[in-house]
Amino acid sequence: MTDTADKDALVLFMPSGKRGRFPVGTPVLDAARQLGVYVESVCGGRATCGRCQITVQEGNFAKHQIVSSNDHISPIGPKEERYDRVRGLPEGRRLSCSAQILGDLVVDVPQDTVVNAQVVRKAATDRVIERKAAVQLCFVEVEEPDMHKPLGDLDRLKAALEKEWGWKDLLIAPHLIPQVQSILRKGEWGVTAAIHRDMDSSRPFIVGLWPGLKNEAYGIACDIGSTTIAMHLVSLLSGRIVGSSGTSNPQIRFGEDLMSRVSYVMMNPDGREAMTKAVREAVNDLIGKVCEEGGVNRDDILDSVFVANPIMHHLFLGIDPTELGQAPFALAASGALQYWAHDIEINVNRGARVYMLPCIAGHVGADAAGATLSEGPYRQDEMMLLVDVGTNAEIILGNSSRVVAASSPTGPAFEGAEISAGQRAAPGAIERVRIDPVTLEPRFRVIGVDKWSDEEGFEEAAGSVGVTGICGSAIIEVVAEMYLSGIISEDGMIDGAMAAKSHRIIPNGRTFSYLLRDGEPRITVTQNDVRAIQLAKAALYAGIKLLMEKQGVETVDTIRFAGAFGSFIDPKYAMVLGLIPDCDLAKVKAVGNAAGTGALMALLNRDHRREIEETVTRIEKIETALESNFQQLFVNAMAMPNKVDPFPNLAKVVTLPERKVLADDGGEGGGRRRRRSRD
Amino acid sequence: MTDTADKDALVLFMPSGKRGRFPVGTPVLDAARQLGVYVESVCGGRATCGRCQITVQEGNFAKHQIVSSNDHISPIGPKEERYDRVRGLPEGRRLSCSAQILGDLVVDVPQDTVVNAQVVRKAATDRVIERKAAVQLCFVEVEEPDMHKPLGDLDRLKAALEKEWGWKDLLIAPHLIPQVQSILRKGEWGVTAAIHRDMDSSRPFIVGLWPGLKNEAYGIACDIGSTTIAMHLVSLLSGRIVGSSGTSNPQIRFGEDLMSRVSYVMMNPDGREAMTKAVREAVNDLIGKVCEEGGVNRDDILDSVFVANPIMHHLFLGIDPTELGQAPFALAASGALQYWAHDIEINVNRGARVYMLPCIAGHVGADAAGATLSEGPYRQDEMMLLVDVGTNAEIILGNSSRVVAASSPTGPAFEGAEISAGQRAAPGAIERVRIDPVTLEPRFRVIGVDKWSDEEGFEEAAGSVGVTGICGSAIIEVVAEMYLSGIISEDGMIDGAMAAKSHRIIPNGRTFSYLLRDGEPRITVTQNDVRAIQLAKAALYAGIKLLMEKQGVETVDTIRFAGAFGSFIDPKYAMVLGLIPDCDLAKVKAVGNAAGTGALMALLNRDHRREIEETVTRIEKIETALESNFQQLFVNAMAMPNKVDPFPNLAKVVTLPERKVLADDGGEGGGRRRRRSRD
Repeated sequence: MTDTADKDALVLFMPSGKRGRFPVGTPVLDAARQLGVYVESVCGGRATCGRCQITVQEGNFAKHQIVSSNDHISPIGPKEERYDRVRGLPEGRRLSCSAQILGDLVVDVPQDTVVNAQVVRKAATDRVIERKAAVQLCFVEVEEPDMHKPLGDLDRLKAALEKEWGWKDLLIAPHLIPQVQSILRKGEWGVTAAIHRDMDSSRPFIVGLWPGLKNEAYGIACDIGSTTIAMHLVSLLSGRIVGSSGTSNPQIRFGEDLMSRVSYVMMNPDGREAMTKAVREAVNDLIGKVCEEGGVNRDDILDSVFVANPIMHHLFLGIDPTELGQAPFALAASGALQYWAHDIEINVNRGARVYMLPCIAGHVGADAAGATLSEGPYRQDEMMLLVDVGTNAEIILGNSSRVVAASSPTGPAFEGAEISAGQRAAPGAIERVRIDPVTLEPRFRVIGVDKWSDEEGFEEAAGSVGVTGICGSAIIEVVAEMYLSGIISEDGMIDGAMAAKSHRIIPNGRTFSYLLRDGEPRITVTQNDVRAIQLAKAALYAGIKLLMEKQGVETVDTIRFAGAFGSFIDPKYAMVLGLIPDCDLAKVKAVGNAAGTGALMALLNRDHRREIEETVTRIEKIETALESNFQQLFVNAMAMPNKVDPFPNLAKVVTLPERKVLADDGGEGGGRRRRRSRD
Repeated sequence: MTDTADKDALVLFMPSGKRGRFPVGTPVLDAARQLGVYVESVCGGRATCGRCQITVQEGNFAKHQIVSSNDHISPIGPKEERYDRVRGLPEGRRLSCSAQILGDLVVDVPQDTVVNAQVVRKAATDRVIERKAAVQLCFVEVEEPDMHKPLGDLDRLKAALEKEWGWKDLLIAPHLIPQVQSILRKGEWGVTAAIHRDMDSSRPFIVGLWPGLKNEAYGIACDIGSTTIAMHLVSLLSGRIVGSSGTSNPQIRFGEDLMSRVSYVMMNPDGREAMTKAVREAVNDLIGKVCEEGGVNRDDILDSVFVANPIMHHLFLGIDPTELGQAPFALAASGALQYWAHDIEINVNRGARVYMLPCIAGHVGADAAGATLSEGPYRQDEMMLLVDVGTNAEIILGNSSRVVAASSPTGPAFEGAEISAGQRAAPGAIERVRIDPVTLEPRFRVIGVDKWSDEEGFEEAAGSVGVTGICGSAIIEVVAEMYLSGIISEDGMIDGAMAAKSHRIIPNGRTFSYLLRDGEPRITVTQNDVRAIQLAKAALYAGIKLLMEKQGVETVDTIRFAGAFGSFIDPKYAMVLGLIPDCDLAKVKAVGNAAGTGALMALLNRDHRREIEETVTRIEKIETALESNFQQLFVNAMAMPNKVDPFPNLAKVVTLPERKVLADDGGEGGGRRRRRSRD
């Protein structure tokens, strides 16, 4: 039955699908190595680390012409038996360094080989990242010193690492040199070296050394945001996330938003030092938190990847961000940077490294690069719009042929600032709003309360948290619903004539407000609130349109919302409001902390570092302020959803108010560009 | 007359002798670059640094078929005129970046272009070391930031260094990253970068950055001896030595000799730290001393090379030397090592590097490697013996085909220790001795006194310093003279029968002594003193013989004495005593601190680093203690000059006492080896 024309056996590795023929007797690990199938191993084939586990899939795989069976692999020998006795081998699992190929096989390489099974896997990201970490653990047996061969202990260690693992031209972290002799003797000449193979110097480095077998190493992936610092702690050997946590950025005490922090540096002689110290301390504290969560010693952290916006990037690295506060917004360094963690006071293993993703531009930082790496517009053919909304929105648009990027100063309105009843997302904040188009009566939901405001028992349920304000996602919804119900016109005016129809339209000086909740506090949406949202969304949309023009497209195929804001808003309302261009709603997706996911990818697979470094050099950066038609695009985008752009996909699911036909779209730039006729 | 078959001019560079044809109008500097002639330049052809000076040799160079004339070079233009006005150009000198080739030329590249001529050249070494320093200064003009091209300031600096100087894949010392922006702006976008092109990581590194033109950089070459630390301060641009000094090693307070320092480490918990701190402090103080001497700011020191014996090597680098105190004498690291100077607490420029020469073996250190680099036995065909005598003698023997090395435990006798009247070389110490073979009366010279002791006015002249003891060189001479005058026999016994002939032979218990000076103090040479010298010289000679046997030679062609001891002893007496094998005395040379010279070579020319790294891997190390015939060679070498070896060259200049013909040379090993018959 099996396809054995010659004496070699046919072996198929899953899930990679790589296959090849190997002589009977070949260890499965060797076969995997020869095919370039990644199977971890620390002990170098001594059947002690348990990292190289595989399973045999039994059955007739007709498509591959393989009949695979456990009879086609060598029986468990003494080494595997010993491992099973001492550390336990799960049912069906084999150590591929010991198990030999006896016949045709389909071999499954588990994506997450749990060796010390005390930690629960976190669902921080649902993606499987192919493991190719910068740090590899390698156990070796080193020759003892010999008076006839006067090579030093370090030099014999290097020779052993070259002979057993193929590492050539190894360097060593200087702090380890004085420890080499005692570690070799403590390990009775058997030691585990951590090899960093992604140093910016390109030669492999010994960054850690332990007596005997060291079977675990960790890394951290961290996103330093202006408001929040988020971190994953992950096993570099299995890829398991063993801890994920966040903390608020203590720099908030120096200034709520980025520009006020730059001002603080400019006004205070020690301002830069103080903010650098604050953010590094917060990162160190957060490391302690994720280590506690994962039951990990911080000394076992050997690698780290950081992303941040440009100002956080500079402050974290001890660079004065003043230049970023004024044109031409010059970054001190835009390329990827590497450090010893120790050099920037990150308190982990003394040999650990820091990799900082490249920045795209003075306002589009390493965090945007991380999100780009995570979502990969350049990896696919659809025109992808990737938006990360904060006080500054980063916008990436592109596909495999071309990627363009810009930032747009949306201001803090989307985060609830500058809104009369705005507040952060916290219990008591209104997070969802609906307005009856006939009665103009609202109903809403509040964070921390399950019921809608018009459901029975809502007031009782809301009693403890209260109804305290409107958070970012609800601001989008309430303005959108006000537009859909006719309370505000396309140009954003609250229609005072409606006051006759509903008590919820109330005069407020020379303008009108919408009464969302009559109580304590009284929550209204004022004309100024609507204006603030209009300005913010117009800035975002104009930036997006500018990039669409650069790309020569009038629609996008898919939209990714990165960041916390993206996770909470309803894409439909974002589209009604005209934050984002028209698109099939099924193809609008919130992707959470994509910047952090990008950091994680760069941590677990060093190929992703080269990928984003190379990608960033190709991304075309558009400075919105320098584009002559930005102003016109902005004016058009003040209207809801837009003065000139059609929203056919949105119209399929939402009944938009009837739009007036404009004879002329006016303005300086609009008239010169080709536009589709309004539908 | 001139050979101008085509329109190109023929240009010959001296002293390199490189020549080539170049189109009329080619700047002389470009022609030199194209031929690989090393001409320094910092400003990159802007005629501001003055480093690229050359002169034109006028005349008819028939051998080269060149008629060279100052008419064949472009007249001084406005740039050179400006340089001459501002900084002064010596008569006849031209700036090769500005001067263009107009016709055939013989161009002289001065070996030491003095730009800031305030410092006197030191004759620390008479050798011309081809300059190819690890650090190069490069002035560049950097593009200003532009909103349309969001590359960071550092990234634009790198791009400028690649464009103007050809540096690819540049890295930067992390401490400079936060300074890049302010330095660029202070220099109005013109900055000088120090590029280190010999980092162990192999990629070029920006290690220093200054606004505007930085036109000087220094390095230090240092030999850390057990007793003395010696240092040169040298311009990396001109090769000029601007300061040379020494200091005693403060570790002496922890133990006079190396093994007592190892014991100190073993007995005291903080012993290693204390000794590391002491030697680093001494090095830092010495840097201050040479900087003061040279009028140099220590912050302008950008590179350093260190040599040391293995125990000093380890203590300097913060490595516990305990393993070096016991078999198998394992070095922690034998290969060359590099550090940031800052990492090992050497207080110079923050971006300066430390290069540590490789060690040859557990008892043959980086100092021996330095001496090997300096004298270069492997660079020539003669069989060269290189000896560095201290309490441990390092012996290197070889030529271009093969080099062998060993160390021999000579003990401290040669340094005056273990000798009853021994003392260090200091005013009052006897340094030269002659004994009248008829009367057995001595005459001697004393350090600090010009006259010999038998000259009129000696006592008055010696009055202030006194006659206090015998230093190392005189111990060699007095024992040799005692042997030549028949006071001691070939086997080293002071002949008591001589007491009848001279009052200078005096009984001393069961043996006799020779009265060298009757006074206060009374200075005698005892039988024990003679024995101590015999043991020391036998150890050295047996080691040398062992290497000669490994090489299969019975004579050496040339002998080099390295170290202070070698500078003071008279080779003739060393040979009479049998410290060294017979050799043409004209080919025995004291080479001073060859280890330090080797460090200087590695500092000024990075090719020498590769040269010694590669050489050390090929040197065969002989462990004398493990060689079965060492004992017999040692026994033979106890006799003067030697029990079995002939000294024909020595016999030509010195009348050796008649030697008894031995029927049998006895002992375990001697009889088995082929020997030449005695002459």
